[in-house]
Amino acid sequence: MTIFYILDILGTIAFAISGALVAMNKKMDPFGVFIIAFVTAVGGGTLRDVLIGNQPVIWMTDITYVFLISSSVFIAILFRKKLKHLQKSLFLFDAIGLGVFTITGTEIGINAHFHPIISIALATMTASFGGVIRDILCNEVPVLFRKEIYATACIFGSIAFIILHHLNIDQTIVNVSTTLIVIAIRLIAVKYKLSLPTFYSEN
Amino acid sequence: MTIFYILDILGTIAFAISGALVAMNKKMDPFGVFIIAFVTAVGGGTLRDVLIGNQPVIWMTDITYVFLISSSVFIAILFRKKLKHLQKSLFLFDAIGLGVFTITGTEIGINAHFHPIISIALATMTASFGGVIRDILCNEVPVLFRKEIYATACIFGSIAFIILHHLNIDQTIVNVSTTLIVIAIRLIAVKYKLSLPTFYSEN
Amino acid sequence: MTIFYILDILGTIAFAISGALVAMNKKMDPFGVFIIAFVTAVGGGTLRDVLIGNQPVIWMTDITYVFLISSSVFIAILFRKKLKHLQKSLFLFDAIGLGVFTITGTEIGINAHFHPIISIALATMTASFGGVIRDILCNEVPVLFRKEIYATACIFGSIAFIILHHLNIDQTIVNVSTTLIVIAIRLIAVKYKLSLPTFYSEN
Repeated sequence: MTIFYILDILGTIAFAISGALVAMNKKMDPFGVFIIAFVTAVGGGTLRDVLIGNQPVIWMTDITYVFLISSSVFIAILFRKKLKHLQKSLFLFDAIGLGVFTITGTEIGINAHFHPIISIALATMTASFGGVIRDILCNEVPVLFRKEIYATACIFGSIAFIILHHLNIDQTIVNVSTTLIVIAIRLIAVKYKLSLPTFYSEN
Repeated sequence: MTIFYILDILGTIAFAISGALVAMNKKMDPFGVFIIAFVTAVGGGTLRDVLIGNQPVIWMTDITYVFLISSSVFIAILFRKKLKHLQKSLFLFDAIGLGVFTITGTEIGINAHFHPIISIALATMTASFGGVIRDILCNEVPVLFRKEIYATACIFGSIAFIILHHLNIDQTIVNVSTTLIVIAIRLIAVKYKLSLPTFYSEN
Repeated sequence: MTIFYILDILGTIAFAISGALVAMNKKMDPFGVFIIAFVTAVGGGTLRDVLIGNQPVIWMTDITYVFLISSSVFIAILFRKKLKHLQKSLFLFDAIGLGVFTITGTEIGINAHFHPIISIALATMTASFGGVIRDILCNEVPVLFRKEIYATACIFGSIAFIILHHLNIDQTIVNVSTTLIVIAIRLIAVKYKLSLPTFYSEN
């Protein structure tokens, strides 16, 4: 429970900073930067909770999220000059958020006794939907539909989590290792420009 | 109940194939094709269920939908060469989904004792919203806002359903006939390029 | 309660007309005009209710909203020639809706005992999200992200409401004065082209 909460906080901070960086890249005003950071951080979890029926959504009842995101935005604005290579920092924070939220999404699915496939879907949704909204609001092509492996990293991480969980391995080890798997797949995919095989070759 | 379920399955398959065809037209990777097919098939019903408060949404608790959509996508990919005239097939499958989901949407509204106007709105939403999301994600102008009659077909079908239902006609006959009405209106509208009257002529 | 309901009706009419005007500017067909008007009028409140878990959403159980919006659209279409200066009328109706829905959103948050910050967020969402959907569907840059102060007006109005409410001032006075504050901030911001301070100057 506490590990789960800490992971959720880490993912929230990572995605909030990632959102703030994209918004500052677009030269948005402070309010716009905050909104994009907020939506990036809580968008995936909010969609998940609404589809499950878990309302009011978590950030309405636990005010911690608002303070976390506000602080993250403040720090991102303050250190924006040191973050000259915005693209690289953005990419790393996005990968961390992706890894952490894959785990929280899977865990919520398992605890609610959904079918493993649905738990994987919830993980993917939690991890990637915030970034999709961020990209739509910033008028970029959604990250999900770019060539590199993105949601696929969540799917593999979520499957790994479910398998390790069934093997009764210590939960902390499961959490940390599957988070690292997602981040590693994402980093490797981008570094080596990996993408899913296509089937249009013969056309 | 069983007829209702069969109709829902038919609509899901039709919309999943329609979504897969659009995504393949856009040369998306396998994951993208699956996501677009999934969103097209369940998007309208999911929005409806969330607005009603009918959660967790159906495809989370009944895993059949995931398998149906996966199979439909697999078949669509396999037979994509035989579906050379993608546009025509796409249009037909879309019309079938439109007809079937108009009925399921209306029925849910009636069973939940909503005002007939709300039942018609639920029908239109169930039938057309999946296609709207599909078009937004594929960066096309949403089908709802194109010139030909689309949502209007749902509205007429839904009204016919409500009238026939009040006349206590056998439910199977009501289902089949109103589904056919929607498909027929849609086919005729596109064939003769019918559209709603406009009021801008005097400008 | 009754004042609250009257405010909600006023906001619905104002936003429905604002939506209809935007849609007519885009030369949409009658169905498109109605849909845009509807989404503009109920979009913000619907998102708020779904996130809170207040379902079925209000316009499904209280058919008044459908009739109000239909009538507003009918009147907007009928008097479209007298509304030659569409932009100006549109702007005024939008500001009224913004003011009124800020109040209803804040009040719902307070009544549900959410943290004041969340009440302010609910107010901003209720007031501005309908306009965001309207702009996305009409393919305009969402009003929230344009330069002038928009959501900021809601935030100030909502804060004023919460303060006055805590001072136990008569509810009618609180409602009217904070609605006027939001409208005034919005009018002044646009008249004098005010915007939030930016922090990109040193780049």
